Amino acid sequence: MRATKLRRIQSGLPTFFEQMSFNLLHTSSQSKARAGVLQTDHGNIETPIFMPVGTAGTVKGVHLLELQQDIGAQIILGNTYHLYLRPGTSLLEQAGGLHRFIGWNGPILTDSGGYQVFSLSDIRKIKEEGATFSSHIDGSKHLFSPENVMDIQRSIGADIVMAFDECTPYPCDYKYARESMELTHRWLERCIAHFDASTPKYGYKQLLFPIIQGSTYPDLRKKSAEYIASTNREGYAIGGLSVGEPHADMYAMTDLVTDILPIQKPRYLMGVGTPANILESISRGIDMFDCVMPTRNARNGMLFTREGIINIRNEKWRSDLSPLDAQSELALDNTTSKAYLAHLIRNKEMLGAQIASIHNLHFYLWLVKEARKNILADTFEPWKEEMLDKVQRKL
Amino acid sequence: MRATKLRRIQSGLPTFFEQMSFNLLHTSSQSKARAGVLQTDHGNIETPIFMPVGTAGTVKGVHLLELQQDIGAQIILGNTYHLYLRPGTSLLEQAGGLHRFIGWNGPILTDSGGYQVFSLSDIRKIKEEGATFSSHIDGSKHLFSPENVMDIQRSIGADIVMAFDECTPYPCDYKYARESMELTHRWLERCIAHFDASTPKYGYKQLLFPIIQGSTYPDLRKKSAEYIASTNREGYAIGGLSVGEPHADMYAMTDLVTDILPIQKPRYLMGVGTPANILESISRGIDMFDCVMPTRNARNGMLFTREGIINIRNEKWRSDLSPLDAQSELALDNTTSKAYLAHLIRNKEMLGAQIASIHNLHFYLWLVKEARKNILADTFEPWKEEMLDKVQRKL
Repeated sequence: MRATKLRRIQSGLPTFFEQMSFNLLHTSSQSKARAGVLQTDHGNIETPIFMPVGTAGTVKGVHLLELQQDIGAQIILGNTYHLYLRPGTSLLEQAGGLHRFIGWNGPILTDSGGYQVFSLSDIRKIKEEGATFSSHIDGSKHLFSPENVMDIQRSIGADIVMAFDECTPYPCDYKYARESMELTHRWLERCIAHFDASTPKYGYKQLLFPIIQGSTYPDLRKKSAEYIASTNREGYAIGGLSVGEPHADMYAMTDLVTDILPIQKPRYLMGVGTPANILESISRGIDMFDCVMPTRNARNGMLFTREGIINIRNEKWRSDLSPLDAQSELALDNTTSKAYLAHLIRNKEMLGAQIASIHNLHFYLWLVKEARKNILADTFEPWKEEMLDKVQRKL
Repeated sequence: MRATKLRRIQSGLPTFFEQMSFNLLHTSSQSKARAGVLQTDHGNIETPIFMPVGTAGTVKGVHLLELQQDIGAQIILGNTYHLYLRPGTSLLEQAGGLHRFIGWNGPILTDSGGYQVFSLSDIRKIKEEGATFSSHIDGSKHLFSPENVMDIQRSIGADIVMAFDECTPYPCDYKYARESMELTHRWLERCIAHFDASTPKYGYKQLLFPIIQGSTYPDLRKKSAEYIASTNREGYAIGGLSVGEPHADMYAMTDLVTDILPIQKPRYLMGVGTPANILESISRGIDMFDCVMPTRNARNGMLFTREGIINIRNEKWRSDLSPLDAQSELALDNTTSKAYLAHLIRNKEMLGAQIASIHNLHFYLWLVKEARKNILADTFEPWKEEMLDKVQRKL
């Protein structure tokens, strides 16, 4: 009995006492691309999926109704680091969690704050206990530990909680990468112990996803993936990629770890990426993505479309009165001309950033929805090749 | 026959050859408050009305659908100065006018650019010919004359075109105010001659509104109102108020000129104002208003509500999880908590400005709609007194 359970855990198959939260519907016959459904208490998520980033309780420039109705977001991401500093867990608890605070009824995933500690805070120190850092807002001192980061995410009330990890920069020497990975693994044990000893605060289930590290070193990534897989959690993330390494390295590491991770659990590639990155990673077995690119680049006037990339600040669009994308189902894509958006972006009008953000997020959600359709029809690989040409083209 | 026509012109009654564009439905029995309908080729406007300001082809932070569906805007305002500099009349003509360029199918009023020349441009010079100024964007030199400002507004395609005037600052000495008023009157003659000698570019009718000046000098205001009324145009504006003078002066000047202006034509008080200013001016016979206050103050976190003014940055709102306005018909007012908006505004999140702008514009449109209902029911004055107490209260 015990041996059977262990084998089940290792294979990722559900044990008899465990409720299935991910249904794998189909895997491509020509690649590792998969279509599935991830169940949360705030609704199902059809994978592969892209998660719009709602840093501090808002996807920048986008109304909730637009996220739901125009963009078709199925899950959004919040940043633990930002939410912890502002509005803070006390207010979030008073509100009954982040969902109620911001009025979003769908699933939410929160990162662990580790990435922001390392990227935003000037002063930080990593110890066995955790990471001390000073707030980028007011310089105040804080500690993130595996335990309190679990507590914070319980207070936020995310449907999917990320383990606290150290995200190594690129490049990163082997010794640092190995020691950091080992620290991340020790932190993970503490995360799991603390998470499992606590209960959700708002009556719905929270899932915990551990994070694989190991920089761009195949042996470290293999070791980390094996260790992370052995924890038998509800899903697994790949961290420490999309931090400046060559795309080939990112794809190689992704390929390597998805061969190790159990088939029956969702895989989340953190912080990725361009439309091409997403398509390539789907074909390497990734189910979930998040990235600030569609909204951040939108604010600078870069539009992702099914025919290529538009830099709306280029002179050629200035008097182009054709719609942003006449093939799109998004109303704004049909009613907004390139010239009007160019005018708004050039003049730093908020509405420009708003329209471009909705456009890009709608496109990202369209892309993963089309990917899913093609996976289910087992036509993903030829469709992907065709799309790769288009989405990387500069218009 | 000629004498009859002249009398009709002076009384503001329509002459036999003139198509009525304003229907006065009711005037309060206790004040000069009026309810009417102003007809344009892009739809009817129910007065009294507030016009959201869409400076450079966008009401800042507000989508067109929101303007139509959530805010209930019936007419928006564009700034000739901004639109002339960017995107420029050539592109607007290619687009078929401002309505088509921005996708707004309702009525548009454009100011004449005079106010911005005097308030935004560092270097400007007023001559008989017109006003030379340097662009606040790139320093380039331009001339606005009565003739080219009419041409520009023909190219923009506004439903209501404003005459080119000099807007005197406050305070302003008598001599300057008189000479400036006389210049404005001479410019008006040129505006009318040029406007009437030209035709609309896009097939729909454009109305021309002259502007009364005269600073805070009753004799000048009287003289200007009499002259402006004698032009028998489609409507009349009062300029040079709401520029820093005491409210009592603004009300006195408004009262004075609405006694002179013909009953049967709409009156537009430019750049006004607070909710209290609007209520007081309605009771003095004003039909149309515009002001950047609801959107500009929204971006700074000031909300106008039917119970008073909320400065959402105040500490007291930080953890107030009650809705912005539970009595409001606006969905966002019911789904957004004060604490959430406070969080967004404090963190300079675009969504904060977006929500607050929609809230304030919805409130302004609600206010004039309620005013109209009460005028039609002849209950305006008691309702106004009650509202004046509320809208000026700090919550």
